[in-house]
Amino acid sequence: MHWRFVLALLLSIPAYNAALANDGVAARSRDPSQWALQTGDYADQRYSRLDQINTANVASMKVAWSFSTGVLRGHEGSPLVIGGIMYLHTPFPNVVYALDLDDENRVLWAYKPKQDGTVTGVMCCDTVNHGLAYAEGKIFLYQADTTLVALDARSGKEVWHAVNGDPKKGETGVAAPFVVKDKVLVGISGADLGVRGFVTAYNINGGARIWRAYSVGPDAEILFDPDRTTSLGKPVGRDSSLKTWTGDQWTIGGGAVWGWFSYDPALDLVYYGTANPSTWNPDQRAGPDGKPIDQKWTMSIIARHPDTGLAAWAYQMTPFDEWDYDGINEMILADLDIGGSLRKALVHFDRNGFAYTLDRVSGELISAKPYDPDLNWSTGVEMDPSKSNYGRPSVVAAKSTFQNGPDNTTTGICPSSIGAKNEQPASFSPLTGLFYVPMNSLCMNYEPYKVNYTPGQPFAGATLSIYPQQGRESTGRVIAWDAREGKTVFSEDERFSVWSGVLATAGGIFCYGTLEGYLKCRDQKNGTELFRHRTPSGIIGNVFTYALHGKQYIGVFSGVGGWAGIGLAAGLDKPEDGAGAVGAYAGLKQYTALGGTLSVYTLP
Amino acid sequence: MHWRFVLALLLSIPAYNAALANDGVAARSRDPSQWALQTGDYADQRYSRLDQINTANVASMKVAWSFSTGVLRGHEGSPLVIGGIMYLHTPFPNVVYALDLDDENRVLWAYKPKQDGTVTGVMCCDTVNHGLAYAEGKIFLYQADTTLVALDARSGKEVWHAVNGDPKKGETGVAAPFVVKDKVLVGISGADLGVRGFVTAYNINGGARIWRAYSVGPDAEILFDPDRTTSLGKPVGRDSSLKTWTGDQWTIGGGAVWGWFSYDPALDLVYYGTANPSTWNPDQRAGPDGKPIDQKWTMSIIARHPDTGLAAWAYQMTPFDEWDYDGINEMILADLDIGGSLRKALVHFDRNGFAYTLDRVSGELISAKPYDPDLNWSTGVEMDPSKSNYGRPSVVAAKSTFQNGPDNTTTGICPSSIGAKNEQPASFSPLTGLFYVPMNSLCMNYEPYKVNYTPGQPFAGATLSIYPQQGRESTGRVIAWDAREGKTVFSEDERFSVWSGVLATAGGIFCYGTLEGYLKCRDQKNGTELFRHRTPSGIIGNVFTYALHGKQYIGVFSGVGGWAGIGLAAGLDKPEDGAGAVGAYAGLKQYTALGGTLSVYTLP
Repeated sequence: MHWRFVLALLLSIPAYNAALANDGVAARSRDPSQWALQTGDYADQRYSRLDQINTANVASMKVAWSFSTGVLRGHEGSPLVIGGIMYLHTPFPNVVYALDLDDENRVLWAYKPKQDGTVTGVMCCDTVNHGLAYAEGKIFLYQADTTLVALDARSGKEVWHAVNGDPKKGETGVAAPFVVKDKVLVGISGADLGVRGFVTAYNINGGARIWRAYSVGPDAEILFDPDRTTSLGKPVGRDSSLKTWTGDQWTIGGGAVWGWFSYDPALDLVYYGTANPSTWNPDQRAGPDGKPIDQKWTMSIIARHPDTGLAAWAYQMTPFDEWDYDGINEMILADLDIGGSLRKALVHFDRNGFAYTLDRVSGELISAKPYDPDLNWSTGVEMDPSKSNYGRPSVVAAKSTFQNGPDNTTTGICPSSIGAKNEQPASFSPLTGLFYVPMNSLCMNYEPYKVNYTPGQPFAGATLSIYPQQGRESTGRVIAWDAREGKTVFSEDERFSVWSGVLATAGGIFCYGTLEGYLKCRDQKNGTELFRHRTPSGIIGNVFTYALHGKQYIGVFSGVGGWAGIGLAAGLDKPEDGAGAVGAYAGLKQYTALGGTLSVYTLP
Repeated sequence: MHWRFVLALLLSIPAYNAALANDGVAARSRDPSQWALQTGDYADQRYSRLDQINTANVASMKVAWSFSTGVLRGHEGSPLVIGGIMYLHTPFPNVVYALDLDDENRVLWAYKPKQDGTVTGVMCCDTVNHGLAYAEGKIFLYQADTTLVALDARSGKEVWHAVNGDPKKGETGVAAPFVVKDKVLVGISGADLGVRGFVTAYNINGGARIWRAYSVGPDAEILFDPDRTTSLGKPVGRDSSLKTWTGDQWTIGGGAVWGWFSYDPALDLVYYGTANPSTWNPDQRAGPDGKPIDQKWTMSIIARHPDTGLAAWAYQMTPFDEWDYDGINEMILADLDIGGSLRKALVHFDRNGFAYTLDRVSGELISAKPYDPDLNWSTGVEMDPSKSNYGRPSVVAAKSTFQNGPDNTTTGICPSSIGAKNEQPASFSPLTGLFYVPMNSLCMNYEPYKVNYTPGQPFAGATLSIYPQQGRESTGRVIAWDAREGKTVFSEDERFSVWSGVLATAGGIFCYGTLEGYLKCRDQKNGTELFRHRTPSGIIGNVFTYALHGKQYIGVFSGVGGWAGIGLAAGLDKPEDGAGAVGAYAGLKQYTALGGTLSVYTLP
């Protein structure tokens, strides 16, 4: 099918009151007393204008109340707070609770999906869920089994549901739904099982499927317009994905979409990242000439028009991935004064250790600087547009798992597959102009091996060993990043990977959780620790804030798990388990056990 | 076997350093910075001399830290605190953690028993466990499968284990082990499955079985000396149990032992209660003449010599039980000024709604007064020793499920089978001389039906419907009881049954948890609520306290379950489930979900 014909079809879809539908969510996200989106706001800044809890008094913060979700395993994401009601989600089996914050946090309703439990067998990295979305009186839950459910926010009754994928093929739901205008967007997980990634948009009223955009494949399926979709300022041309794959490998090519979305209402563009190409064995993905080939648009940032799914631009961070440097980490939208001019920027801290700043209008690359001080797989990203490798990282031969060949172990690669940072989102504070980034201080050995594709079976094709960076005992840190200068302003070590999303507030603090279970708050200016408190279990949830009757609250899920906590969560104890992460976190069981509790803090 | 011969055998058993072994536990229980016994001290007063947290400042108490146990379902009992180390237990699968309170509450070790999961199928009232015991460097865990394990307190390695019963016959472990001198005592659960109850004493070093005392059966097996064991001041005579049963019904006669023990070192007597006769259908247990028959020593308080197991005295609260008024509730030892003379008293708040005060030396009945204001199954307990029914309750015909006959429903019986109070222990404050009693405000309809005995199968034989007392919406209360006067001094309603053990302290407060999940502290003098804080889940654990480096802490497990929470814990939702309790607590799911977290509070 020719692209222009597809586009015509897309444009013929009714607009479903697109002009109206956006207002509710956007308005609520501007009201700091609510926490209306998982990402805090459409820009994914995770910044709150609430300042009652601040640098001067955060030390006195105490637990206001807590709520056990009744589910163990890793608790990612955060609740939503909408009009005095808090909506909580859990890992599989993905229970949803509505709590009345004005009436003893009474459970107004609980929704307990019936799911085939075998789905948990194809979830790569614990049975996590990134949380709910809200729009127009409906709560959207994206279940592990890929069922997207719209619930009446008042009653918890199902309004509609849509099935987005097939767990038998390894397709699962992890990402949070994201509402833009009259559509709810959901991705798909499973790149490590050969799932070909996509984003689907459903109408929030009724659940009709509006569009689906794959990450890899024919233009008509990835919704790229050869002439209008650009990369680094130039049209991508025909078959921009297809021609970067050998044969039909793209059909099991990965590029899953399981991270966070962001949205610029003025530009009417949605941003998200795509995951690794599958398998993790690069030898099996080489080009027809036996050389590296890009495997576009895996490992990419993609900007799309939400009404049609049409891609405005795309940028690939790690062509021909050899390290599982999955590109799904969040895109933070901020207008930054860079080199004397105010740029509509998009800042992205990639698993590969580079922090990318792009012009979010055009997709132009403004900078790509290492935010992982130990990054050693690349000497840098070419910034000269006149060069043929413009925008591409230069790979260090000694760290190339492809050049070293399958069944050989490449040692001392930094960062590890887990990434300099994983999905847990950073925050941006307009107060300081800095980004607060939760990080991992890990390196790895990587041994690719041949793996055959079987639907619904692991398709990883590499044996990993992950360990702390040289000379360190700790495996994590949090940094403040100046995207204008492309440099780290301060860095604070943590005993374990910081697997929790950061919140920054107008009170001058930024807060995050640790895998031991501490909620910590620091000074945005210098990183000084101002508060720490031990929650019931290790934290992999995202810190959020809201206000009720003039009082500010800061909350976070505890409940250890995720990739970092998979050893604990799934009872694994061999170093090679959990894609090599178990060894790196073997000490974690000395500090915490499984849990699943929301802890909410306030001032005395 | 003749009794005197048995006794001679018992006395021939070596004393195992009995004189020494007691000192460690007793000394630790006198040190208020430790929490060395589940019962606080041997007298089971659950009173702490710590007064840093007191009526003047308890309102400012806040969560110091918390720890998720990694297990859901009902969390009964409390941790122990021994020399700066906290030892926690969980419901099935009965994990034990040792946390270093001086090093970020680090997990020094975790012990995870391997148990056959089918045991949970024969546990009547959730998969609860009442907690650990400590003595001489060993932690004692009594597993659901009745394995008693001694763990090295420093390493968590098993030192020895003994198997106390057989889950295939319905025998399970719930009660906390209790160390007296060189012995560790454990009971057995399963009276609702026809288990014949007993207490067994094992040597703390090596685990050799020293004695076993059944609740029902031949004198040689219940360790009653016809001449020396007394009841209400008189020798019990031969076959005091056997002659109160029809035929061999005593072999499946109940009288389980699953409550708390207490101990008077000066008298060298251990006290505990025995459970209901089985079945719950009294018609099947009638005497050969078709009339009620006592079924001794079910429903009794028994005082035994710990070295031999020999019973010093016994008192039966509810002969020929017709209501499942299980007699296992704790025995609180206190020296009380009663009628002008100081009495070595034992105070017991029975499920049947009467508060009993006995002379713990002789077993003499001092008083038996209703502490449940709605008690209506009896007009009172005969206190005149010259009467033939001395010490026995007078049964109200209209509330007699036996007189009304099987397959007929007796309605409006108060209290319900759950009891005016269940196993959750009360506390005694020497400051006020009052007992603080966690209670249920429930009545019931009771329909006995014929049931056949099959080993390991429910042998209840009654259909119950349990509901709030007339005119009430709440199902619980806490009262202050004056055992000297036999009257309630104040009573405070709670929304749900108070299923949490009470702590009283020298700070003038008493604290307990609620099924919604509040930890509450009140003024011992007048019941005024001074503190409330919402923990993650409903509380059925017992409040405890300790001090570290001069700072007092108050802690409690949350994790809803037990009989009251079985609907939530096991996902039951029919009113007749959970022996009729589910209906009474249907509203509970509006307030809490499953959990398993220790919350520890302190002053700012």
